[in-house]
Amino acid sequence: MTRAAYYLGERTFAVREADPVPPGHGEVRIDVAYTGICGTDLHILHGSMDHRVRTPAVIGHEMSGRIAALGSGAGDLRIGDPVTVMPLDWCGRCPACRAGHTHICHRLNFVGIDSTGSMQRSWTVPARIVVPLPAGLPLQHAALIEPTAVAVHDVRRSRLTAGEHAVVIGAGPVGLLIGKVAQATGAAVTVVEIDPHRRSVAERLGLAAVDPAAGDLAALVLETTDGAGADVVFEVSGSAAGVRTATELLAVRGRLVVVAIHPATREVDLHRVFWRELEMIGVRVYQREDYVEAARLVDERLVPAEVLISRVVPLAEVAEAFHALEAGGDVKVLLDCGGDA
Amino acid sequence: MTRAAYYLGERTFAVREADPVPPGHGEVRIDVAYTGICGTDLHILHGSMDHRVRTPAVIGHEMSGRIAALGSGAGDLRIGDPVTVMPLDWCGRCPACRAGHTHICHRLNFVGIDSTGSMQRSWTVPARIVVPLPAGLPLQHAALIEPTAVAVHDVRRSRLTAGEHAVVIGAGPVGLLIGKVAQATGAAVTVVEIDPHRRSVAERLGLAAVDPAAGDLAALVLETTDGAGADVVFEVSGSAAGVRTATELLAVRGRLVVVAIHPATREVDLHRVFWRELEMIGVRVYQREDYVEAARLVDERLVPAEVLISRVVPLAEVAEAFHALEAGGDVKVLLDCGGDA
Repeated sequence: MTRAAYYLGERTFAVREADPVPPGHGEVRIDVAYTGICGTDLHILHGSMDHRVRTPAVIGHEMSGRIAALGSGAGDLRIGDPVTVMPLDWCGRCPACRAGHTHICHRLNFVGIDSTGSMQRSWTVPARIVVPLPAGLPLQHAALIEPTAVAVHDVRRSRLTAGEHAVVIGAGPVGLLIGKVAQATGAAVTVVEIDPHRRSVAERLGLAAVDPAAGDLAALVLETTDGAGADVVFEVSGSAAGVRTATELLAVRGRLVVVAIHPATREVDLHRVFWRELEMIGVRVYQREDYVEAARLVDERLVPAEVLISRVVPLAEVAEAFHALEAGGDVKVLLDCGGDA
Repeated sequence: MTRAAYYLGERTFAVREADPVPPGHGEVRIDVAYTGICGTDLHILHGSMDHRVRTPAVIGHEMSGRIAALGSGAGDLRIGDPVTVMPLDWCGRCPACRAGHTHICHRLNFVGIDSTGSMQRSWTVPARIVVPLPAGLPLQHAALIEPTAVAVHDVRRSRLTAGEHAVVIGAGPVGLLIGKVAQATGAAVTVVEIDPHRRSVAERLGLAAVDPAAGDLAALVLETTDGAGADVVFEVSGSAAGVRTATELLAVRGRLVVVAIHPATREVDLHRVFWRELEMIGVRVYQREDYVEAARLVDERLVPAEVLISRVVPLAEVAEAFHALEAGGDVKVLLDCGGDA
């Protein structure tokens, strides 16, 4: 028997015993070590993803573990291999897939939302979505590869280069990871965040953090960039104010990366877009190369997992873990799924 | 004596005799053959640029002519050379100039708006902004190089390639030129325009033109792109509806080029920007390489000047020329400035 956390709808989880699913052709079974709780998982708890999640549902997609069983045709993987999963499964036939943009497949299955996820001890998945880990990488740290891959993708799409100046608006987990990935490229990074606790986390991570309410942010950015403005702004706040600030801060030919998911349309200063030849760049999840780079950054401690992981909670206490995250004060909360024995 | 058209403010022009300005060091005097009337010139007539234009002002920046006199240090130019002018004069010292984006200089002097333009027989300008013309190119046609360079710049910034599908929203002169330049790259082009006369001009230019009120535009674009959507949309209408339509039509990783000058902020569907990894690209004027390419396209008749030039009017009738353009029905109106004798 194994154990799984089931989301039942209406803000409720139940942890139950379950039978492991034997891997079929092209599949593997993973003993899940850790699963991180993502902002999207919180949205699921709040009911905002009920149109995609069929209850009772095992959710979760930021994970690490070891190969426990192999189906036929599962490739080069071996029992005991440390792995993570890139939780995207695409159709391969739609116009986006045919153009090579499989991560934006028109019929994308996001594993852990649209299908069964990793908040369980034993998880059976297609071998094609498994990503082997660098040897010696602690499995707790490896659970951060998925959100780090988001940040790697966003920074790659921004075309940020060494010596440029990046501003990150919003210092939640993704904002902080973008800050560290941007710093690893050799860029100067300023994080903008209204919450003092989040600013203190940014500072512990070695990122300059600014309170936008404390002074003239645009003047500060001009001063630190010799009058030019920011080369890249990552909008991670999801707010109308964040979008407005972003276009104000950008230099000529600056790039605005829309990281946060804005549920509504937003007012955008298209005159400024014209006047300074700004670019706006949409970003969504990641591609395989982002996963490879994310694993390297976590492995080399350029993304310091030990600072970002603020709490590790047994799977049985999943409900408490979500509530702790909702209460604020945490950065990344991991569920110990029991597979790191 | 020479002759010049002066904008006096309050929708008024006066044509007067004037003394030619002898070229100083690094300058040349040009006998102006033709000057096209631009949408910006119409804005000047309507008073919307009065904060930049000091009356009495000679405006105009779409031109062709011949070198009439050389100051000292005017480089390789010779008397009689056919030329046009790239009407941008930059400081060379601001952050944008230092970064190589001289066409977006923080203190850009747009010649013909911020300083004296070409609606006159004899025009003295810095030799550094003069662009020699291909031999044998008719000077009437050469007056279209400046607006064509706008279109070349916009298409270049869009990264449009052969085989892609571009949609142009708005078929004024710039929209039509973008359509022809996009077509010259080997892309399939659909022009969207509500005005039947403008659609008929697009069709005479060999561009497919669609009335957005006549049916489901998004469905049409999906059908012509095998379900993918448009690779590039050029927003040349300046309307809120144009911006909304653009994000609706774009394929995964599609690019929205903001060509029109939107005076206000606009609602942008940032969820769609995220979901399809769209890009928005601001564009402003042109760079030297765009001028060179524009001259080639006009010279090789890939931009058919004879279809686009709907009227040629003597300089003395400048007021009538502006009024004809305001009345609609024209595409490009040229002033014959008398220098093509």
